[in-house]
Amino acid sequence: MKVSRRRVLATAAGAVALGRTAAMQSPAPAPAASDPSKAPGRPARTLGQRAAFEKPQRITRGATGSQTPHQDLYGTITPADLHFERHHAGVPEIDPRSYSLLIHGMVERPMMFTLADLKRFPSVSRVCFLECSGNFNRAAPPETTPQQLAGMTSQSEWTGVMLSTLFREVGARPQATWFLAEGHDAALLARSIPVEKAFDDAMIAYAQNGEAIRPEQGYPARLLLPGWEGNSNVKWIRRIELSDRPFMTREETSKYTDPLANDTARIFSFVMDARSLITYPAYPVTLTRGWVEINGIAWSGYGKIQRVDVSTDAGRSWASAKLQEPVLPKAHTRFRHLWKWDGGEAIVLSRAVDETGYVQPPRAELLKTRGPGAANYHLNPVTGWLVRSDGAVVYNQEAWG
Amino acid sequence: MKVSRRRVLATAAGAVALGRTAAMQSPAPAPAASDPSKAPGRPARTLGQRAAFEKPQRITRGATGSQTPHQDLYGTITPADLHFERHHAGVPEIDPRSYSLLIHGMVERPMMFTLADLKRFPSVSRVCFLECSGNFNRAAPPETTPQQLAGMTSQSEWTGVMLSTLFREVGARPQATWFLAEGHDAALLARSIPVEKAFDDAMIAYAQNGEAIRPEQGYPARLLLPGWEGNSNVKWIRRIELSDRPFMTREETSKYTDPLANDTARIFSFVMDARSLITYPAYPVTLTRGWVEINGIAWSGYGKIQRVDVSTDAGRSWASAKLQEPVLPKAHTRFRHLWKWDGGEAIVLSRAVDETGYVQPPRAELLKTRGPGAANYHLNPVTGWLVRSDGAVVYNQEAWG
Repeated sequence: MKVSRRRVLATAAGAVALGRTAAMQSPAPAPAASDPSKAPGRPARTLGQRAAFEKPQRITRGATGSQTPHQDLYGTITPADLHFERHHAGVPEIDPRSYSLLIHGMVERPMMFTLADLKRFPSVSRVCFLECSGNFNRAAPPETTPQQLAGMTSQSEWTGVMLSTLFREVGARPQATWFLAEGHDAALLARSIPVEKAFDDAMIAYAQNGEAIRPEQGYPARLLLPGWEGNSNVKWIRRIELSDRPFMTREETSKYTDPLANDTARIFSFVMDARSLITYPAYPVTLTRGWVEINGIAWSGYGKIQRVDVSTDAGRSWASAKLQEPVLPKAHTRFRHLWKWDGGEAIVLSRAVDETGYVQPPRAELLKTRGPGAANYHLNPVTGWLVRSDGAVVYNQEAWG
Repeated sequence: MKVSRRRVLATAAGAVALGRTAAMQSPAPAPAASDPSKAPGRPARTLGQRAAFEKPQRITRGATGSQTPHQDLYGTITPADLHFERHHAGVPEIDPRSYSLLIHGMVERPMMFTLADLKRFPSVSRVCFLECSGNFNRAAPPETTPQQLAGMTSQSEWTGVMLSTLFREVGARPQATWFLAEGHDAALLARSIPVEKAFDDAMIAYAQNGEAIRPEQGYPARLLLPGWEGNSNVKWIRRIELSDRPFMTREETSKYTDPLANDTARIFSFVMDARSLITYPAYPVTLTRGWVEINGIAWSGYGKIQRVDVSTDAGRSWASAKLQEPVLPKAHTRFRHLWKWDGGEAIVLSRAVDETGYVQPPRAELLKTRGPGAANYHLNPVTGWLVRSDGAVVYNQEAWG
């Protein structure tokens, strides 16, 4: 707003900012000093805390999952305490001093690595997303937030040792084509992974966003398979066994297998297809007329996001959004698109295109391939938000079948 | 270590990992279950916490500063609660609903922006370091950690609005060459900044590492001047006044001015020169013989790090370290170099070279330029660590004068 000097003096103390997150719209937990410049502030401390006015939180889904509050986030990094979690028997507490990773099976030299051993190898860091393959709610009602719609994808800077380094250390045999990755949780969660991935970009990660990996992300060490479904990135990893065939564990037979429309099913559907999510505007925001920066995240397990298209007319026309550089492979990429909202009802949609040329499909197209009996895995349809003429924004609900 | 199957069975429960951080070497705060796979783990929760075994902390320096524990960190992102802090009158608590930023002086339209106003403009994100210009201790004893030596540089992904966007909104006049940036803390900290920087890469940042900016980093909004000394990145920013000359505030006359050897002084020495810091091995680590990954961070306020040289023979010979991609401008860049330690006494050093060709100077060279009366600002000499033959690592102390 344009102001005169008089107005500045008259309103500076009483101006009210309308935050765009639910947390900011709720009453402040504690009144701040009327003029913070009139008294010394809080002294330095050994650990910082969030401002009392900011309360981002995960939403728990039963005892075994929680979702990232995308509508409260900016940029591309997910704060570690807001990274989604998903486990099958709770989060184990593992003493790093007794942690070990055994690599055996079709290898020249079976070896056991302590955490210190793992940290002694050459290390690498990479920023990538991690997404649960069950990150979509087909029955989402209009009152659905980005967190509830797609809160099981998050992004971190991971640091660890390349799995290829360890496989060379143990002498993986040429006939070994698969390996079993087994976690040290009470579910002993185990998945079969092609050895090819180990020699591509798989890591054993022990750090996340600059610090030791968090307990619910696999402390003290996890398998990281950039771009692949979360479940295969086995946390609390304690054992890797190399073999010449997959192990057909429970998690790849009774679960994480996708029925298709033609009465077959696909198994070992590891890679997460390209997807995008508008995080603003979204339920429960209320818009005011004028310029709006539509923004969100897009990602693909196949590589870099090449383009994100945004539509503000329910998909009749599309425009390319601006992508935040640097665009990294297999990483959440922030996209932004300016839109002048004129007060009419509108449906805003986003559509990711990755470097392979793959285009995120509309719901009807995805449904045709997967069929009405599709499992809740790998569902990545184009989604968006309905802006009502009063400015209220709700999820653009579409019937699945 | 190489193991037989028998050894695996015999030692799996009793293996001891020697962590490389002080925190990990201290006794565990709570005993972990002997076998975490035998009982269900902790259920999902709305906010994650660090593992009980991990206790990274800032070190406070009086009431007005604290340092980042570089020896406990990995990769390039500094967790927000471990970002260094420096303030002149404590951390104010500012209610985001009453926050405002006034831009006035040599402008067509003086304007006041609420936080919601700032968030409505097109946003940008960028990863960059922020370093206090007083980030060096000339009298550091051998028992100095990386945190104590250079703990006042940290890195975040910042999100906000370009200052150039706001300057166009208010109509900055052509004759305006400087602006005053004033904070809303009890020090009313103020600095004069060339308008040129506003039209280059200055931002008003309101988010840090994906979430709202933390209180000690300027909540709810701060000036961000990528590559420039921390003090000029005014936190809790409440007022910007454009002018045709600098304002000669206390913070650029009595402080933050650097005496030189030739009896003159330099003022407005904004840009942070290239520097590097080996974070491992460093005091108080004890090395064992064999391969060691020397690693650390390098940064320059002038742009990208082009090269980091590492010496393991006190500077007689140098080798190029590996730089973690992507190398971003004005950003901490992780470097790594493999070294086989044979058990002899050794001095390991690192030297940053940035894209301008500038080479981080040895202490004697820096001293020649600055003189013995140099202030404690902008000191970036080559530093390193002395590895004793028993493996003990201490800071490689050098006399300043």
